[in-house]
Amino acid sequence: MIAADMGDSVVALVERLRARDVRALGRAVSLVEAGASEAASLLAACFPFTGRALRIGITGAAGAGKSTLVDRLARLYREAGKTVGVVAVDPSSPFTGGAILGDRIRFQGFTGDAGFYARSMATRGALGGLARATADVAAVIEASGKDVILIETVGVGQDEVDIVRLADVTVVVLVPGMGDDVQSLKAGILEIADVFAINKCDRDGADALEAELKASMGLGHSVRDAGWVVPVVRTTASTGSGVAELAEAISGFWGWLGLEGRLEVRRAEQWRERILEMVRGELLRALRRSSLGEGELAELALRVAGGVENPYLVVPRLLAGIRGNFKLNDRG
Amino acid sequence: MIAADMGDSVVALVERLRARDVRALGRAVSLVEAGASEAASLLAACFPFTGRALRIGITGAAGAGKSTLVDRLARLYREAGKTVGVVAVDPSSPFTGGAILGDRIRFQGFTGDAGFYARSMATRGALGGLARATADVAAVIEASGKDVILIETVGVGQDEVDIVRLADVTVVVLVPGMGDDVQSLKAGILEIADVFAINKCDRDGADALEAELKASMGLGHSVRDAGWVVPVVRTTASTGSGVAELAEAISGFWGWLGLEGRLEVRRAEQWRERILEMVRGELLRALRRSSLGEGELAELALRVAGGVENPYLVVPRLLAGIRGNFKLNDRG
Repeated sequence: MIAADMGDSVVALVERLRARDVRALGRAVSLVEAGASEAASLLAACFPFTGRALRIGITGAAGAGKSTLVDRLARLYREAGKTVGVVAVDPSSPFTGGAILGDRIRFQGFTGDAGFYARSMATRGALGGLARATADVAAVIEASGKDVILIETVGVGQDEVDIVRLADVTVVVLVPGMGDDVQSLKAGILEIADVFAINKCDRDGADALEAELKASMGLGHSVRDAGWVVPVVRTTASTGSGVAELAEAISGFWGWLGLEGRLEVRRAEQWRERILEMVRGELLRALRRSSLGEGELAELALRVAGGVENPYLVVPRLLAGIRGNFKLNDRG
Repeated sequence: MIAADMGDSVVALVERLRARDVRALGRAVSLVEAGASEAASLLAACFPFTGRALRIGITGAAGAGKSTLVDRLARLYREAGKTVGVVAVDPSSPFTGGAILGDRIRFQGFTGDAGFYARSMATRGALGGLARATADVAAVIEASGKDVILIETVGVGQDEVDIVRLADVTVVVLVPGMGDDVQSLKAGILEIADVFAINKCDRDGADALEAELKASMGLGHSVRDAGWVVPVVRTTASTGSGVAELAEAISGFWGWLGLEGRLEVRRAEQWRERILEMVRGELLRALRRSSLGEGELAELALRVAGGVENPYLVVPRLLAGIRGNFKLNDRG
């Protein structure tokens, strides 16, 4: 049924990536990331092979040591015989495109390991948003047969919170002695943590930070799921100390999620957001193709900037105009 | 013509805020921020009174001292006889709602000053996005007759970059000695700076940071507008040192923007993005009202999470279904 909607090349590509062909996987990820015309059918074909992996989100401030921690976790899961995919997102960098070379250096310990695949997102300003692009890339990687997906992102701002919410388990990485920054970071990030990692815990202030975290939780700020006590694990990613304990805490939450239908509830909530995001993106694309092409838009923007046209009156008029001649993309 | 589309209460509210009634301004801002049903007509009525103010965006990492710098700048403009509005955005905090009390403390030096108005954005998860909400709030404040609008936000992530791009002049605030963090921050933020402020410049490393910034600019990273050499100003917001020089650098860029139609080009680019964002938001709202209500969406999300329904096939089907029965909000 799905195959009937797709071109032969997409079918072949998905077959190859299912057969652990790393180059096919890389090509599929690039197509999806670029929002290519094949992306919709590719994702539709990948979807049936998703939903089984453990998806772990790792977030925290820049400089918290997330990358090293992700590398350590990936290594640990590989040693336990699990296949691993990594999606690294840095929305603050417009240059992540160049990071594909950086990936080769960063993950060179995994060279030639067919059970490991990593991708940095180079999709600042991605059509449909970075969270959607990340979700799509993660889905393709998962469909290639990975048991564990690690999603790494800088933890500030709504975009990043959205990205981490793609995960089943969210690990928030904090570092002692960040002073005021932790205060402001915590506010946004406390509520999304399923597990805390205090990294670089050999630094001064680890005790104080742990106490502070536990006090905040006592105030009820971080109880994302009632009944789960968010563990605080101390790690030193550079030496690997505490990483096994972190993996154990992650497993603990994953096990807890598996009970009483909690995982289903969480994933349904995530899909609710993702479906809305997909719909929003597709609607805009359809509109751009019909009544709001690049030329019309540029001219309209110029008139608004000049004060000649009132945008708050124009936009409703524009939308009313599309009724009836709404052309939609039926591919997919 | 506009008035004919609006209810009497909106007309009265706009008249009162135009007449410098602070309570009316506060009420209008709250309506817009909350996405109330009056918001569209309110904004349409405010639009003709916008476009003349100098809009300054202030961004940088948490802890860079942006708030103090904004306070100092506001004071300086007030002393020069200019009226001032402030919009402070902290997307990393879900608790900004509570910051309205904080505002009263923060801006208490301005108590009773009718030429000053400040608002913290409490709109995490705002319908239509934080950037749109910020733009709308800024427009209402500007319509109340402010000469200068200061927009303050934490400078990480696409959301925040979008917010700063509402401004005519973007000031990026950096602090010496932030080490690796500055490296990662710089990548995303260099390209949006019209003026750099090195705040807390009494700290070690100010010379190194300035040299680094200038070297990066030499590489062409930060030349947002060809022909403008981004100035680097040293400030110590806590004492007020360098703030006059910062205001001068801002004026310098504002003057440069005024030549050869550059301001019009910049504002047209901004309106291009804002119009798209408005359209996207309105389309989604219309869809939610017609074929994708809360119940349908929740049920669909559950089926997708369970693997029963393929989202990449469902979304195009959903969109095809809305053709013809698209109900739009003609208000506004």
